[in-house]
Amino acid sequence: MSAPDINAVKAYLLDLQDRICQGLEGEEPEARFQEDNWTYDSGIGGGRTRVLAGGKLLEQGGVNFSHVIGNTLPPSATAHRADLAGRGFQALGVSLVIHPRNPYVPTSHANVRFFIAEKENEPPVWWFGGGFDLTPYYPFEEDAVAWHRAARDACLPFGESVYPRFKQWCDEYFYLKHRQETRGVGGLFFDDMNEWGFDRCFDFLRSVGDHYLRAYLPIVQKRKGTPYGERERDFQLYRRGRYVEFNLVYDRGTLFGLQSGGRTESILMSLPPVAHWRYNWKPEPGSAEDNLYQNFLKPREWL
Amino acid sequence: MSAPDINAVKAYLLDLQDRICQGLEGEEPEARFQEDNWTYDSGIGGGRTRVLAGGKLLEQGGVNFSHVIGNTLPPSATAHRADLAGRGFQALGVSLVIHPRNPYVPTSHANVRFFIAEKENEPPVWWFGGGFDLTPYYPFEEDAVAWHRAARDACLPFGESVYPRFKQWCDEYFYLKHRQETRGVGGLFFDDMNEWGFDRCFDFLRSVGDHYLRAYLPIVQKRKGTPYGERERDFQLYRRGRYVEFNLVYDRGTLFGLQSGGRTESILMSLPPVAHWRYNWKPEPGSAEDNLYQNFLKPREWL
Repeated sequence: MSAPDINAVKAYLLDLQDRICQGLEGEEPEARFQEDNWTYDSGIGGGRTRVLAGGKLLEQGGVNFSHVIGNTLPPSATAHRADLAGRGFQALGVSLVIHPRNPYVPTSHANVRFFIAEKENEPPVWWFGGGFDLTPYYPFEEDAVAWHRAARDACLPFGESVYPRFKQWCDEYFYLKHRQETRGVGGLFFDDMNEWGFDRCFDFLRSVGDHYLRAYLPIVQKRKGTPYGERERDFQLYRRGRYVEFNLVYDRGTLFGLQSGGRTESILMSLPPVAHWRYNWKPEPGSAEDNLYQNFLKPREWL
Repeated sequence: MSAPDINAVKAYLLDLQDRICQGLEGEEPEARFQEDNWTYDSGIGGGRTRVLAGGKLLEQGGVNFSHVIGNTLPPSATAHRADLAGRGFQALGVSLVIHPRNPYVPTSHANVRFFIAEKENEPPVWWFGGGFDLTPYYPFEEDAVAWHRAARDACLPFGESVYPRFKQWCDEYFYLKHRQETRGVGGLFFDDMNEWGFDRCFDFLRSVGDHYLRAYLPIVQKRKGTPYGERERDFQLYRRGRYVEFNLVYDRGTLFGLQSGGRTESILMSLPPVAHWRYNWKPEPGSAEDNLYQNFLKPREWL
């Protein structure tokens, strides 16, 4: 098995961040990503945060690179890996969340990450994680199918069983237990990935990273011109409350970031610029909003 | 020591809910509390949720009573009490969060609760908890002082040391570590309270419950007519994001509710109807908004 090459991972991630920002800016007529470089106060390293706010297409989008080196893995990273508690670590990743203005354009999220947990006199433990998932407001079945086709395409060179496995993991991970709803239509999620050796795992990470824009841009292009009114906007803002709930209550990456003393503004760029809560609101049966609940917020086989 | 009297606690809590709703409605010209009764699907019991939405004064307010009986205390309740893990429990409480529309009127929160953890062949373990805290947007020193005076008045019959102790606990509890900010100007917070025996502890709970309206209504009356514009409203909505962050990331009551299978809509009525996030926003030095950060979001001795 080949040794992990942190520099190669880092170079890929920085390039991926560039390409994703360029791809999104290509659809956005009015605003541009602003870059903030930061240093990791709780250890060594830092990040390159890029946020685009107040665009015509993108109400807010954040595409963040970070590479942090710390003395102790925080609880969120060792909850399932008690053997790694107390180890020093390096964590590298690109994480992004895109909140479009038009309620017909889904919110999307992607993340690719690499961890090494180190301890004196022991071999380092490393793993990859990542994936991408889609959160529509006014959903289209053909968009969900196309999204999952891209997810399957990303996995297929690595075996027939990879897409079904990580598609299911995604359904399980992006689940709001207290709402009994999935966050959206899912996609891919994987973690603790080292079973194929470093080179092949890194190939897989690249495949997932490279397929995000291929999956998302066609949907953006198809839906961004759809007219909408106050009703659709209200529903989008209401549903964004679920995005906030998921990220603050459940999301491992958010908790890892906050617990490891990461840069709060970079971590919480995943939250939407505006979110609404309405006590005990339910969609009218048979309405377009109800269609989301009935047909898209439960795990489904899309392909 | 007298045995715990659950029925007496329940009767007090239901009456307290009534009185608080009436007191708040007395200030609200346009809207009324709506009541929803629910049953606890994960065990026995249920609750009486009262929410007022879309008022002129109260953009949203929820005043909830609940009494739930379950088989296993959830992790949020036993994190600091490992000896109680796995016990059956009863939990009774009134919990409220008031989000006024006018940014000059602070948000307020109060909670009074009683727990019994039961196990066969062992004496039951019981405790009270509760408190109230204030979250201003455009703060006034005299309001913070008056609020803390009411808090001290609630505690004084129980000893000189009670207010300082629970005031400090409140500062520590309502703290957003990832922002290095208190949630507001604090007040009182206590938990695991059984050291005075049941009768005196229950007296203390009543004193805290009864002082909430005495603390809050004068501030509401004084500030509700203050004119405001878009700038103040924007800042209020931005700061409400912090309220969401606290309740979903840190709040023990919210986590207890969600983990114990409580009614989600009743638990999350604490979230504001509208919240904004703005990447990397900071107040202009010397501005009214900066005054909040500089002088009110750090623990202070108000009396």
